[in-house]
Amino acid sequence: MAKFSREIEVRGHLIDSLILTKIFDGVMDLGGEFEVLKIQIGKKKKDESYAELRIQGKNQNHLERILELVYREGATAKIQKEVNLKPASKNNVIPDNFYSTTNNHTLIFLKGNWVNVDDMMMDKCIVVKSNKAKCTPIRDVKKGDKIVVGEEGVRIIPPKRPREGMNVFQFMGGSSSSERPTQHIAKKVAEDIYKTRKLGGKIVLVGGPAIVHTGAADSVATLIRLGFINALLAGNALAVHDIEYSTLGTSLGMNINDGTLAVRGYRNHMQAINSVFKAGSIVKMVKSKQLSKGIMYECVRKNIPYVLAGSIRDDGPLPDVITDVVVAQQKYKEVLKNAKMVIMASTMLHSIATGNMLPADVKIIIIDINQPTVTKLMDRGTWQAVGVVSDVGAFIPMVTQELKKLNK
Amino acid sequence: MAKFSREIEVRGHLIDSLILTKIFDGVMDLGGEFEVLKIQIGKKKKDESYAELRIQGKNQNHLERILELVYREGATAKIQKEVNLKPASKNNVIPDNFYSTTNNHTLIFLKGNWVNVDDMMMDKCIVVKSNKAKCTPIRDVKKGDKIVVGEEGVRIIPPKRPREGMNVFQFMGGSSSSERPTQHIAKKVAEDIYKTRKLGGKIVLVGGPAIVHTGAADSVATLIRLGFINALLAGNALAVHDIEYSTLGTSLGMNINDGTLAVRGYRNHMQAINSVFKAGSIVKMVKSKQLSKGIMYECVRKNIPYVLAGSIRDDGPLPDVITDVVVAQQKYKEVLKNAKMVIMASTMLHSIATGNMLPADVKIIIIDINQPTVTKLMDRGTWQAVGVVSDVGAFIPMVTQELKKLNK
Amino acid sequence: MAKFSREIEVRGHLIDSLILTKIFDGVMDLGGEFEVLKIQIGKKKKDESYAELRIQGKNQNHLERILELVYREGATAKIQKEVNLKPASKNNVIPDNFYSTTNNHTLIFLKGNWVNVDDMMMDKCIVVKSNKAKCTPIRDVKKGDKIVVGEEGVRIIPPKRPREGMNVFQFMGGSSSSERPTQHIAKKVAEDIYKTRKLGGKIVLVGGPAIVHTGAADSVATLIRLGFINALLAGNALAVHDIEYSTLGTSLGMNINDGTLAVRGYRNHMQAINSVFKAGSIVKMVKSKQLSKGIMYECVRKNIPYVLAGSIRDDGPLPDVITDVVVAQQKYKEVLKNAKMVIMASTMLHSIATGNMLPADVKIIIIDINQPTVTKLMDRGTWQAVGVVSDVGAFIPMVTQELKKLNK
Amino acid sequence: MAKFSREIEVRGHLIDSLILTKIFDGVMDLGGEFEVLKIQIGKKKKDESYAELRIQGKNQNHLERILELVYREGATAKIQKEVNLKPASKNNVIPDNFYSTTNNHTLIFLKGNWVNVDDMMMDKCIVVKSNKAKCTPIRDVKKGDKIVVGEEGVRIIPPKRPREGMNVFQFMGGSSSSERPTQHIAKKVAEDIYKTRKLGGKIVLVGGPAIVHTGAADSVATLIRLGFINALLAGNALAVHDIEYSTLGTSLGMNINDGTLAVRGYRNHMQAINSVFKAGSIVKMVKSKQLSKGIMYECVRKNIPYVLAGSIRDDGPLPDVITDVVVAQQKYKEVLKNAKMVIMASTMLHSIATGNMLPADVKIIIIDINQPTVTKLMDRGTWQAVGVVSDVGAFIPMVTQELKKLNK
Repeated sequence: MAKFSREIEVRGHLIDSLILTKIFDGVMDLGGEFEVLKIQIGKKKKDESYAELRIQGKNQNHLERILELVYREGATAKIQKEVNLKPASKNNVIPDNFYSTTNNHTLIFLKGNWVNVDDMMMDKCIVVKSNKAKCTPIRDVKKGDKIVVGEEGVRIIPPKRPREGMNVFQFMGGSSSSERPTQHIAKKVAEDIYKTRKLGGKIVLVGGPAIVHTGAADSVATLIRLGFINALLAGNALAVHDIEYSTLGTSLGMNINDGTLAVRGYRNHMQAINSVFKAGSIVKMVKSKQLSKGIMYECVRKNIPYVLAGSIRDDGPLPDVITDVVVAQQKYKEVLKNAKMVIMASTMLHSIATGNMLPADVKIIIIDINQPTVTKLMDRGTWQAVGVVSDVGAFIPMVTQELKKLNK
Repeated sequence: MAKFSREIEVRGHLIDSLILTKIFDGVMDLGGEFEVLKIQIGKKKKDESYAELRIQGKNQNHLERILELVYREGATAKIQKEVNLKPASKNNVIPDNFYSTTNNHTLIFLKGNWVNVDDMMMDKCIVVKSNKAKCTPIRDVKKGDKIVVGEEGVRIIPPKRPREGMNVFQFMGGSSSSERPTQHIAKKVAEDIYKTRKLGGKIVLVGGPAIVHTGAADSVATLIRLGFINALLAGNALAVHDIEYSTLGTSLGMNINDGTLAVRGYRNHMQAINSVFKAGSIVKMVKSKQLSKGIMYECVRKNIPYVLAGSIRDDGPLPDVITDVVVAQQKYKEVLKNAKMVIMASTMLHSIATGNMLPADVKIIIIDINQPTVTKLMDRGTWQAVGVVSDVGAFIPMVTQELKKLNK
Repeated sequence: MAKFSREIEVRGHLIDSLILTKIFDGVMDLGGEFEVLKIQIGKKKKDESYAELRIQGKNQNHLERILELVYREGATAKIQKEVNLKPASKNNVIPDNFYSTTNNHTLIFLKGNWVNVDDMMMDKCIVVKSNKAKCTPIRDVKKGDKIVVGEEGVRIIPPKRPREGMNVFQFMGGSSSSERPTQHIAKKVAEDIYKTRKLGGKIVLVGGPAIVHTGAADSVATLIRLGFINALLAGNALAVHDIEYSTLGTSLGMNINDGTLAVRGYRNHMQAINSVFKAGSIVKMVKSKQLSKGIMYECVRKNIPYVLAGSIRDDGPLPDVITDVVVAQQKYKEVLKNAKMVIMASTMLHSIATGNMLPADVKIIIIDINQPTVTKLMDRGTWQAVGVVSDVGAFIPMVTQELKKLNK
Repeated sequence: MAKFSREIEVRGHLIDSLILTKIFDGVMDLGGEFEVLKIQIGKKKKDESYAELRIQGKNQNHLERILELVYREGATAKIQKEVNLKPASKNNVIPDNFYSTTNNHTLIFLKGNWVNVDDMMMDKCIVVKSNKAKCTPIRDVKKGDKIVVGEEGVRIIPPKRPREGMNVFQFMGGSSSSERPTQHIAKKVAEDIYKTRKLGGKIVLVGGPAIVHTGAADSVATLIRLGFINALLAGNALAVHDIEYSTLGTSLGMNINDGTLAVRGYRNHMQAINSVFKAGSIVKMVKSKQLSKGIMYECVRKNIPYVLAGSIRDDGPLPDVITDVVVAQQKYKEVLKNAKMVIMASTMLHSIATGNMLPADVKIIIIDINQPTVTKLMDRGTWQAVGVVSDVGAFIPMVTQELKKLNK
């Protein structure tokens, strides 16, 4: 047996979900060696596979670098070792060798048991408290918190490729394209939303102001009214322009129903902001009947949670906007808990923020007219994302129309 | 009076249509001087304006360079001079100092009269034959043809900004944006198509294969059947994928009605090509009832002209494709004669080709999902172009739906 | 004389700077009438022009809507009226009819004198205190503040088109293109930066993390070291990735000097964040010599101001990040005071924020690889902006190289 | 044993090169079943793997559809069957069930032997003549030619992932990104060009006119002069603007060395076209010393082949342009024979054309500023392609500079 080597094992859909490919890739990219000791490929498509490999490095350090990478793909050491913990030396300061999380379901080997890590998100650390493990952002770490360090004793369950049924995630899973039949995709997306809701799944919309500018605000308001959206994550601009449209009929000073520029329309979004300040808040504006239609109105009326996160480019911002971004992140996370589907429409900023908070098994539908934006948002290593390069002003109304048909 | 100077005059909507601004720009950019000798600004908005300027250069050569530029904007020398002509020394070879045309309405001062130049297109020369002037591509010039040289005796009528009515060209004239209300724009575009047809205006569609890939082929076929498209300019790919879709239900191997990949679908477009070769031509395929729906089918059935121009990337190409691009250009030009409106959908290649052949007063609607493409196609100095940054697979069906309503 | 009419006057470069065109546009777009009562066009290019117009509406209300628009372009009533003021009814609540500012130099007619409005920014209100006028965001308005309402007594000085010299703003002013000679533009940009600095002008860089990812961090650090950048406006990500690169050699886990992926590199940006928390701040990290190169290091060493604005997508964020966006906006504004040139590189979020805070006469250079981003950022009605559609990783090093030559 | 089943085998880098994943995918996507009968995974990374599977369908037709798909990934029936041939019924007409080629190395089982298919290209048919097999476009098929039909007896060798050395294809193989260190990528690309040339490999440049517009013409001319480019594939526009630049100093009427607009510059490209017509051809223009620098000049001087393919949007086109696209395709193919590397710069049209003609093992470097263009060109299922989202006007000069250093 080679000197700097370790035997590892891995199980799951090794071939179908690319697990073995990624492990081989990793070892080769790092200049290591591997030997396949045992391999059992599931005979039928639903069977799991199992493999044992011997990984070999040039020296101990090299070996460990390779192992870190291999463990990331779901492999574990054959002889399982206890997870390593180190206390945080100060508030917000974690040990140098901290384990940085992925968005996959993760377990740690703690006192001889595999323990689930709760609240999985990407790029965080794991804090262990009385036999519980929790994925924790650096800003929430307190002095003395026990932090997982190194890669030993950590196990990842890589996401399975979806295979059942013929939903939009199956036929487009992990891909995007502007050369696809738009009307059909809209129909498929509607069906998935419908099914998700029927099963009681929570659907969160992450949206930007282009929803209003391109004339899709009425459609989104309808989706909320019909119960197909259960929470809204956005920024100041979506709310401002929705209220501008609902109260003055314009968006960015343009009349949405005929596309003409309103006189003095450049000041309409400022007037909308002023009207919310005058009422005190969006909720108060609805209660006093000064706001009686639109996306924000429906949110208030249906009593669904919405979080408006502040950003440096905000006009105003509205009194309802959470201007501290760390607080806004916490609110986003609360709303995203147990979400089954997230629809991201025309906002890169809030979509990236949301993407970073989501475990890999949440379904994501991304709609944007700019292909580079869609490509960037897709890049999270999940099979559960669909990218639609289309015009929200045309696509969302199509989806809404289909949902109305299904809802009858 | 200054030494190297010339008095010029110009009339028209000098302020509204930016004519005077462009003349001032030109003189200043070239380091010349100008003096406003007389100016009469139309008192009311419909009145024409008139200006007389003295242009001054540093030397005779400098003055002439400035004058060339100023004449381009519609100005003429106060004392009009006869146009200068020189014979072509060989076939396809024009005099060095040839006048290179714009896409604006142009006249030449020939034997004391202003004579219209026919067939205006950009970047061509003007051939004079027995008191007639014709805009002519270099490939059509014959030895001995009399060619206009220099800028004297040439007068341009710059395009007026459209001001009447509230059509899509007025509210979006010369601009494009992805942040506009899509449904409203679709409605406006439909109204303009409807009005143009009602007045007997010829509408030409320039289209790429994304029409089929994104699922808009049925809509376009409907537009042809209803008489809203009077000619089709395209390449091999549109026809191939339309026939693939009409006969096999797929586009690029993907089932359009459900978005799934067809088995062995990668070969479907080759099979479509083969089926046309087998029939002999698209027309024969329609006559033998092997092709019974779709864009090409409707063209044949309605007997509207279509030109399929070959390109280096063609598969096949189909027997109906004109593989010689110079011949294809001539056919395009014939079809474009007297067109009132041109719709360019998802093809940069054929749209640029068409744009180069159009006089500035033809209405152009450009639909593409890629903003840089729309920006590039808009860049022809015309007020009569509208750019729609949207998804053809969603936008064209919207336009078609609106036209069906109007047509009732 | 017509019933609902008003005589107005306007002076300046009416033709060259499109002022008269925009006034005619406005009146016609709104369905009004105008009559040119008097017009004097500057005889020579440096002379100012003057015009008197009679504007007529269909009724008093219509007339006033037209006048609002016309005043926006720099016109004023012939008989000047005092500006109207109303007190704010509550903190953050301004009168309904508030005057919403542009980014142009603005004056108000107060007690018979024209008074400058300080701190001009777009989309704000004007607060008058003891004969001084100040452009003020709604969040800074206190109960009882006197706010300008309506359009009477407000005068705008539209920006002049730059005509002197042959700088990059003259030959590209107000335009952008990906089809321009890149190396030459880099040289021109370098010359403008050099001249601006030589005259003591303040240059502010607004930058995104792609500066680091594309390998331009060393170049930007050099620009700061040589004194060509006098302030930095950015977000968390630029600082995180700069520090990741400076301490670990990677950006997003990729080794910048050879483009390979570092082992466990995905955690490097988290490690960089942790290292700043450990030191306490970026300044402390520099002082303790744990950070000894890069953009942030040079900022600290040269003692130039930097503001890192928080956003909802931040990892960490760093202790130096201002997490409250309203506070961050105030800090941005302070830094931007008296800036002569602003360079915006690869960040839409911070560039839009900055653009909203800048008066129209500050020179802006926008560098981004995505044309729609450049187009959007250019859209502020200024002649002083240049859009460069290029790769920051290639363009900024070119500019730096040119500046090194000029600096010798 | 199941009724509608077939035993197949496959060998190669089953895991690393995704072969087995794609086979499993295919079977599952089509609703078939598979059973892994035997599997041997190469113990070490260089060892080949081997698998035997039993594929089962719902009926004979279903099974055959699955098999077609599986064979595409390199599998073959365990009991090899002779390839099926059918004669073409007419010129340009192939049997309905023709085998449509991929761009992978392909063999047919003919009279008991595996025979190589020559001239591999995508989307063609295979013609067998006296024990030789040749990949043939439909336009070259003659009546009676024996055409391969069905999928039996055809074997594909899927491309291996490159693993040796640390070239640009290894670290970026099959991917593209705008967030990569540009200068480093330029260096890596230069090294690969250098090595390829040192080993005598043929390098072909496919280029568009943006090379000239963005100021990279001098760099490309240098690459040709130094022997790093062995053939040029382009269209009319590259040649026109190169000659415009070389003779008049402008591109699209803009002075490349200072970015200013030349007087009457709009006509310069027409003048360049006229000057070639006058000389008779580009070669004659070089010989008569009217053309003495630039890309086309260096091609003539170094006697390297260039093909200018006509397109519908051409001005002129030049006498040297092949206006028939079918002839131009043949010339392109001749030039591409035995190419080791192809560089595609800023032309989608000619790059797609070239891509369709290339076997999967030719290295491809794609440079374009528009990410969707790069994404589209990358989409050919090859590991040997690198996409660089950058500005050719900045990137190519960088590559050239690096090559000059290496060349010393």
